Amino acid sequence: MTISDLTIKHTLPVQIRFSDVDPFGHMNNSVYFSLYDLAKSSYLKEVSGETDWDKIGVVVANVNADFLAPVFISDQLEIETAVIHLGHKSFTLMQRAIDRKSGLLKCQCRTVMVAYDTAAKKPVELPDPFKQAVCAYEGKTLEELEATHD
Amino acid sequence: MTISDLTIKHTLPVQIRFSDVDPFGHMNNSVYFSLYDLAKSSYLKEVSGETDWDKIGVVVANVNADFLAPVFISDQLEIETAVIHLGHKSFTLMQRAIDRKSGLLKCQCRTVMVAYDTAAKKPVELPDPFKQAVCAYEGKTLEELEATHD
Amino acid sequence: MTISDLTIKHTLPVQIRFSDVDPFGHMNNSVYFSLYDLAKSSYLKEVSGETDWDKIGVVVANVNADFLAPVFISDQLEIETAVIHLGHKSFTLMQRAIDRKSGLLKCQCRTVMVAYDTAAKKPVELPDPFKQAVCAYEGKTLEELEATHD
Amino acid sequence: MTISDLTIKHTLPVQIRFSDVDPFGHMNNSVYFSLYDLAKSSYLKEVSGETDWDKIGVVVANVNADFLAPVFISDQLEIETAVIHLGHKSFTLMQRAIDRKSGLLKCQCRTVMVAYDTAAKKPVELPDPFKQAVCAYEGKTLEELEATHD
Repeated sequence: MTISDLTIKHTLPVQIRFSDVDPFGHMNNSVYFSLYDLAKSSYLKEVSGETDWDKIGVVVANVNADFLAPVFISDQLEIETAVIHLGHKSFTLMQRAIDRKSGLLKCQCRTVMVAYDTAAKKPVELPDPFKQAVCAYEGKTLEELEATHD
Repeated sequence: MTISDLTIKHTLPVQIRFSDVDPFGHMNNSVYFSLYDLAKSSYLKEVSGETDWDKIGVVVANVNADFLAPVFISDQLEIETAVIHLGHKSFTLMQRAIDRKSGLLKCQCRTVMVAYDTAAKKPVELPDPFKQAVCAYEGKTLEELEATHD
Repeated sequence: MTISDLTIKHTLPVQIRFSDVDPFGHMNNSVYFSLYDLAKSSYLKEVSGETDWDKIGVVVANVNADFLAPVFISDQLEIETAVIHLGHKSFTLMQRAIDRKSGLLKCQCRTVMVAYDTAAKKPVELPDPFKQAVCAYEGKTLEELEATHD
Repeated sequence: MTISDLTIKHTLPVQIRFSDVDPFGHMNNSVYFSLYDLAKSSYLKEVSGETDWDKIGVVVANVNADFLAPVFISDQLEIETAVIHLGHKSFTLMQRAIDRKSGLLKCQCRTVMVAYDTAAKKPVELPDPFKQAVCAYEGKTLEELEATHD
């Protein structure tokens, strides 16, 4: 699945703070990950409110981010979020930071998240209701989201 | 002028990020100042867009903040901003962080800002158009805002 | 007690991160408070390791900071910390951020901290052993530290 | 080249701030990137002080980070940095965050950096003196560092 195939359902406008901006006038790269977190929480809450996130947590195992253009404080930044893969104990998000005004893609990031039994402190299978909720939200079948190979 | 006398004209809803929250589940105190900055910029832009902020900058000389109650990530936080004093080369802001849902005041902060000639790198008189714009926005006379003694 | 009367016993060199620096090339003001926290923790650990900080916590009630000169990323910043007042349920810290190379004072901050019963969730008296440890560390009598009026 | 083949020459102890720690008591993932920046700057300064970094800048094009274990505020965190690949206009860093006390690897990150003509605002060839300085520092030949295929 390439990024151009994505039909994004979840978009979150985000606030850029003056303290996020570095001496070049660019939003510091580390800030993207705080903003991706914000969008990720919003996504999970919207898609899978039913999942018992007290018993099952999610932890980030890997991020892979391309920085394509700098973000300025005057940008109207939005974070797009989609689940692009469902595995056994993990799932993969694609997130993109886009300036609404110019339409420019500033950064894209693939994040692997692992379901985690917070009591036993070890990875667990993704709950079926969560998988179903993601499929329904993304408008994909389970086969499609499990088959993704990138 | 006591805080209860304030009729707040400028309110900015702000986003709390997961990375803002500390091990106690409270928004870290240092984050307030980034949020106050955000609200301050919004205030200055709205009130005094005409002022040539390239020639005249403002720097923070003093902050005095009371932390009254912790902010949680689920709070709907808003920052209220008002100018409560106009001096010769400085002015004073009162800012408050309030949870919209509960109405609880979480933090209040008085900030002294100094007008600054960015080329000459020294403090300068507040421009008259700025003072007039603030008075018009706050619904106060120049005498009222200059006379404030706290 | 004026700042010049202070004989500082506790000094902590701190690291400035690139993400701490704003578009003017200055360390963002909000960062001072994270650095003051770091120095404060170090101070409390060094001075009063015996105090049971699990039962008795400390929360910040007020900060009052003067920003005197900008911090640059090349500065060798140190935070000086001293207790300048012991009250019944609160104590006051003076902290200063100084560039070791130039000796310039960049920022000074007075912080009021309140002892807090973490179980009962309400302010409590400062433990006597804590007061004694502070007096011993600062080289002052209890009368001197309790009498401070600013 | 696998990570176990690396002989790390550059190690930087880093300070963890209370504001870096999230509600789980873990250092927030976004903080790693600020710490990697700090170590990266230190590395570049140490290795290639001769390079004219005013004319030629470096920008981060991609980060790929594995989060292996949480960092606690009591950890004695160190960042290890090595250049593992030299390309035409880019080079690749491997960085690792390790707790000195336990020896545990907490996070590893591969970062692709692109040399950038700050005036012309476009990518440029890596300067030869920079390449030579890196080879000398890492104890590798140019062939070894250019041949790396991961």
